[in-house]
Amino acid sequence: MHIITSIRDIQGHIKKLKENHATIGFVPTMGALHEGHLSLVREAKRKNDTVVVSIFVNALQFGENEDFSHYPRTFENDCKLLSQEGVDMVFHPDAAKMYSKGFCTSVIPGHLENALCGKSRPGHFRGVAVVVLKLFNIVKPDIAYFGQKDFQQTVIIKRVVSDLNVDVIIKILPTMRDQNGLALSSRNAYLSEVEKKDALCLYKALTKAQSMVQAGIQNTENIVQEMEKIIHTTKSATIDYISIVSPETLEEVPMAHSGDVAALAVRIGKTRLIDNVILLFS
Amino acid sequence: MHIITSIRDIQGHIKKLKENHATIGFVPTMGALHEGHLSLVREAKRKNDTVVVSIFVNALQFGENEDFSHYPRTFENDCKLLSQEGVDMVFHPDAAKMYSKGFCTSVIPGHLENALCGKSRPGHFRGVAVVVLKLFNIVKPDIAYFGQKDFQQTVIIKRVVSDLNVDVIIKILPTMRDQNGLALSSRNAYLSEVEKKDALCLYKALTKAQSMVQAGIQNTENIVQEMEKIIHTTKSATIDYISIVSPETLEEVPMAHSGDVAALAVRIGKTRLIDNVILLFS
Repeated sequence: MHIITSIRDIQGHIKKLKENHATIGFVPTMGALHEGHLSLVREAKRKNDTVVVSIFVNALQFGENEDFSHYPRTFENDCKLLSQEGVDMVFHPDAAKMYSKGFCTSVIPGHLENALCGKSRPGHFRGVAVVVLKLFNIVKPDIAYFGQKDFQQTVIIKRVVSDLNVDVIIKILPTMRDQNGLALSSRNAYLSEVEKKDALCLYKALTKAQSMVQAGIQNTENIVQEMEKIIHTTKSATIDYISIVSPETLEEVPMAHSGDVAALAVRIGKTRLIDNVILLFS
Repeated sequence: MHIITSIRDIQGHIKKLKENHATIGFVPTMGALHEGHLSLVREAKRKNDTVVVSIFVNALQFGENEDFSHYPRTFENDCKLLSQEGVDMVFHPDAAKMYSKGFCTSVIPGHLENALCGKSRPGHFRGVAVVVLKLFNIVKPDIAYFGQKDFQQTVIIKRVVSDLNVDVIIKILPTMRDQNGLALSSRNAYLSEVEKKDALCLYKALTKAQSMVQAGIQNTENIVQEMEKIIHTTKSATIDYISIVSPETLEEVPMAHSGDVAALAVRIGKTRLIDNVILLFS
């Protein structure tokens, strides 16, 4: 497995792969890898000749009072895991090279950046958009893989790729959960054992939404109220938002339809967690 | 010469060219072609296996009170000229396909969009940035060609390409002028015969700046004053701006150095014209 830090070096590798008509699967990450990431890597392995994983904690997508400096960094262990999965290249660029002197371009995903997480994380999604676009332009993947857990991110990346005619297929894979239903996230590392149990209220609320919809209840005000009740039974939990939205526009819908998404962000103690489910009518 | 209007069709052609390792030279235009454009096309022919020219009057880069609806459209004649130059493909996309339902992504070239022309054309350069990025992603050129006449545009495109790691070489070719020195522009079609003579004051002012610098005068306040005097001798001329700027940051400089750019925008009657020279010390 090649571990590559130089943009120019990886461009050289990619050029050779393209000349040999090898397909490239790409999994962009911020490291602190868990089974969620590895599920993306395994699918990339199955469907492509070559798999590239990037590990880059992108300062541009963290707000001033967010956890950029504390974000878990486990590079050696990440590389070990990726090597075991048969990944071909790990791209681990230097921040100073990604955002060099004079850098000033913003990529703004319109109104999509203001919905859901955008309200409490202003600037987050334009940070995501610009780094993903840069990584796509460097790695030139045929297919790039993202997890459904970061739902708004997936919507925005699909939109930016379509709007800018980027020649890459975006695949979204299901959220991976632990045996209790907690969505896997690098930020779960911040949770105490007690908080990990408290954090189950997110998935319980989402499961409630799914079962209400399957029982024929479509009024989203009613569904969100029931979800709120579940979160409120957990003392350490503070709701950031609970929304049921259309999956392309991210607009809240008054009546849920199959394919709409129930999404929420909840703080457990100091840790902000997100989760979502695609509402499917039985 | 293929004339292609469908994005999907040209992507198919490009894919085949790439598979055959053919290099692609690209000249993006808004049509109404003149010798300036053709000089870019000829250089693209000399240096690449295949030449693609786009003709697309991009509504997104026109302000509300600007000349989008009146912009000269001479598609048949343009194709005749391009065919004579041996161009391989003309890409002439439909606006509704370029900006389809739900389009919402902006590409903002930071502070560079606020300098020079940006002051009187708010939003213009983000319109340029997004369409050029789209065209690059569709055509995937090895080299793209632009004219020095649109100086700020060249600076912004180079910046966006560098910031987003777009894999294309940007070549800037010298401004083409008529025998009197008037910079060729599609908008010259708006000028009456009298106005065409009046419009020579732009180049006269730039020539004055060049000769002052070569005489050892570096104080840009003095140089700009002399340029203003020249424009003011023409009754039909109204100055939008005259600036001497650093070629990468577009910031005005108090003292001119070799490589700085003298740029101006002047209205001749109702027609807004731009021009510039790179100040070279003898």
